[in-house]
Parts: sequence; structure tokens; C-alpha cells
Amino acid sequence: MKNNSIEEAISLDRPIGVIDSGVGGLTVAHELMRQLPKEKLIYLGDTARCPYGPRSKEEVQKFTWELVDFLLKKNIKMLVVACNTATAFTLTDLQQKLDIPVIGVIQPGARAAIKFTKNNHVGVIGTEGTIRSEAYTNALKQIKADIHVNALACPLFVPMIEQGVLSGDQALKVAEDTLHPMKIKNHMDTLILGCTHYPLIKDTIQAVIGNHVTVISSSEETARETSTILEVHHLLNKNGQVPVHQFYTTGEMEIFVKISESLFQQSDSQMVKIKKARL
Amino acid sequence: MKNNSIEEAISLDRPIGVIDSGVGGLTVAHELMRQLPKEKLIYLGDTARCPYGPRSKEEVQKFTWELVDFLLKKNIKMLVVACNTATAFTLTDLQQKLDIPVIGVIQPGARAAIKFTKNNHVGVIGTEGTIRSEAYTNALKQIKADIHVNALACPLFVPMIEQGVLSGDQALKVAEDTLHPMKIKNHMDTLILGCTHYPLIKDTIQAVIGNHVTVISSSEETARETSTILEVHHLLNKNGQVPVHQFYTTGEMEIFVKISESLFQQSDSQMVKIKKARL
Repeated sequence: MKNNSIEEAISLDRPIGVIDSGVGGLTVAHELMRQLPKEKLIYLGDTARCPYGPRSKEEVQKFTWELVDFLLKKNIKMLVVACNTATAFTLTDLQQKLDIPVIGVIQPGARAAIKFTKNNHVGVIGTEGTIRSEAYTNALKQIKADIHVNALACPLFVPMIEQGVLSGDQALKVAEDTLHPMKIKNHMDTLILGCTHYPLIKDTIQAVIGNHVTVISSSEETARETSTILEVHHLLNKNGQVPVHQFYTTGEMEIFVKISESLFQQSDSQMVKIKKARL
Repeated sequence: MKNNSIEEAISLDRPIGVIDSGVGGLTVAHELMRQLPKEKLIYLGDTARCPYGPRSKEEVQKFTWELVDFLLKKNIKMLVVACNTATAFTLTDLQQKLDIPVIGVIQPGARAAIKFTKNNHVGVIGTEGTIRSEAYTNALKQIKADIHVNALACPLFVPMIEQGVLSGDQALKVAEDTLHPMKIKNHMDTLILGCTHYPLIKDTIQAVIGNHVTVISSSEETARETSTILEVHHLLNKNGQVPVHQFYTTGEMEIFVKISESLFQQSDSQMVKIKKARL
């Protein structure tokens, strides 16, 4: 620790890279800023080609690697795949090929659910692609074989959120109609928000599903495990200055700025620079 | 992954070692059994020389290494230091010298508190030794410099728990008197149980401190991070049979069996063998 302390400090000061198909991953970025306030972020949202959900595995892999290559040139010390589809299709490949730590959004949510559930009944909601991939069910059963998983696709949530509808009567009605099947004959005590957009409507989901259910934000849990993994790899920036974060979008700035503004506090947003990316 | 699959399976089936000064770490073992039901445990509680709290740093280090040496002979794949005092005094040394992953109980509780707190005011309760060491305050501020920490030693809790008083009027009275200073002029929304004994009286503590405070069990959080770290190091046992756990005590069996019985379900206790250890 005492040798090369300047080089080490520079190394620890390298940014954490965050990729997403669009704006959903901003909830992960927000949690990283909140839980790891000394760490610098570089976020890249592929807004121009969003959503990834309906695309083929090969296409998602190709796009994800393009995002990763962009961030590798920025000298990132760790990669956070803040998109469920990209995690499901590319995490293992990225972990095998990159020489920096890589974390996805699925395992942290699954692990938190295992921690919280007392009755072993867990619900998962996500996009159609994520639910069809059974990535959460597999992640949960890999650790705890006898866990009961009830998964439900919520195809209206992402379009609604991307229109900026985050609360109020309309959000409540959509959530009530969508989550209705989950409330019938279901003993779950824990619900995983298996899509990084959903924390933006967490209060609405909690109101519909009831206070007896622990609602887990995979964004909060991913940020928490990022902290663990940085520590395991001796990459935690313990002496950092207040960082300036860089947020890139491949597409339109409008929805990006809108969601950023609803997520980040004034004090945060002063440190966030939003730019257009050319891949 | 495909080569040497038999050797790899045998390797993954190696036990997780858990050490503690006595019985408090059984709450960590219990959470490991609950959150990682495919993993085999070997627990060693130094009941004969408990408590470690009032001992010198050198003595705690010497005793801890004796426990670790006992477990290394059992071919453990990871070490969990389920004792706050041992974590405070030996974690860095163990992490530097052992070639298996080592986790303590302090960082996981600190990270969970950072995740849960919304108002940045966190309370910590523990033994006099743990509170005096300021280990939690340092761990919290290392990650989040501006966090407000209110720490309180609760010297009566461990003796009370070791007498088997886990609920009822006496437990409530002791908790009310002890926690009184924490309830005055305190804005905390999150409280860390910074001693592995305390989850045994979590309900009583929650009742005294109020439902508006999130009470964090460092045992639950340590088990959760053990899962993360096993995965990072490719040590997670994904195909395990129901394991038989071995629990060793250096001292009397009585309190060990008593606390085990109040923690482990019937189905668990059938898989737990308690033995006397000779270091």
C-alpha cells in the first residue's frame, strides 16, 4: 500500500463504467452516486437503439460489446451492466474476456430476495424479454433450489415511464391492472423489480402490491454489490474528491435529461455532465 | 469449466469456515444456512476463552490465528470472521496472508446501512470493545464521508443473551434502559446491530427503538456478502446435496446447544453435528 501511492491513488480514481440500453440504468447510476459518493461514473445509454428486450441474443451481444469498447477507452476500473437483457445475454462472456470486474443487475436482486424472504415465496416483475429468459428464476434456484418463484411480465411499465408518467392516477391504474394476476393466490412476501426502469415507479408498485411485501430494487442492490466488489478487488476510492460524472447517450437528449432531472437531486445534477456519444 | 469437472465439484463442495469468540457467530451461521442452503459449514466457537472484547489486540490476534489454523486443516474454501472484535483486529492480516477469501462482519453491516439510510443518520450498537474501536464509524466514513454516526455500547446485552434471556419483560426493560440515550435528540433512520449476539433480541430492540428505524443485522448482511464473494471467486456450490454442518466449541456444550436450539429449526438441527474442539 505504501509503495506507488500516487499511482495507486490515480488508479483508484479511475471511473466505474455503467452501460444500459437507454435510461433505465440511470436508477443504478443514481444509487451508485448515493451509496458510493467518492466514485466517478461514466454512463453510456444506447437510447438510439433502445429497447434491447425484443432483439436477438446476437444483436444484444454485438451492441453491448460496442458500448463496452467505448467505455474501455475511458479507462474504467469496473463495469456495471445496468440492463437486464444485456446482463442475461452477455454477463458471462464479459466476465470471461475483460480483465476488470463486471457486475450485472440480476444476481444482486436475486441475492437480496433470498435474504429478505421469510416464507420462501418470491415474485419477479420485468420486461417480456427478461421474464421469458427466466434469468431471475435460474439465479434464485441456483442458490436456493426449493424457492418458489412467481414471475410476471409488465410490458406497459417501460413505455409509460419513458413518457414521464411516474405517479398519479394513470400510473396507479396501469399498475393495478398489470399486477392483478400477482395478487391472486400468491403468498409472496418479497417482490423483485427486475427492470432498472421500475424503481422510478416503486411507490406506485408498493401501494398496489401492499406493505406486507418487501419490494426490492435491483438498482439499489446492484450498487450495494458494486461496493462489495470494489472492496474485494482493492479498487474502492477511499480518499476521493467530489467527482464529476459523465453521462453519454447515443440518441436523443430529451428523455435522458427528463429522467435524470426526476432522479438526481440538485446537488447531484451539478456534478453530472450529459453528452452525446458516437460509438 | 468443462475440464476437470469432478475435481471442480469436489473443490466447490469444500466447507465454508466460520469462527467466533463463542456463540454469537451462530446467528451468522444460521443466516449462511438460510441464504446458502447448498453450502457446508464448519463453525468454531472459542467458548472457553470468550469474550474477546476486553482482551488485548495481540491476544485476540493470537487466539484468532489458532482458530483459523484449526479450520485450515479442514480444507475450507472461504473464511467468515463472525466476531466483531476479531474482525476489527485481524481482518486485514488474514486477508493478506490467506489464499482463500476472508470476510468480516463489519463492512457488510456498514454497506447495508449506507444502502438503507435515506437521511444519512445511522446508529450503531455493539460491545464496549467494538464501539471503542470505532470500526463501524471508520467503515461507514471510508465509503461516505458525510454520514452521521451515533454509536452506543450496550454492555448488558451479551451477558443477558448468554443467560438465554431473549424476550419478555426483563429483556424489554434492559433494552429500554440501555437504548434510552439513543432515542434522545437522534434522527437516525437506520440502526446497525454491531454484535453477532444481538440478532437474537432483534424483535425486542425493534420494539424499543420504533418501527420507523430500519434495524440491520450484521449477521444477515454478512451471509449475503458471503454469497457475493463466493460467486466472484467462482466458489459457489450450485449443485450441492443437503449438507451436514459441523459445529465445534472449545468450551462447554451447554450454552452452545441452548443457543443453537433457539436459532435452528428442527430441519436444520438434524443436519448440525456439535462437537468439542481441541486446538
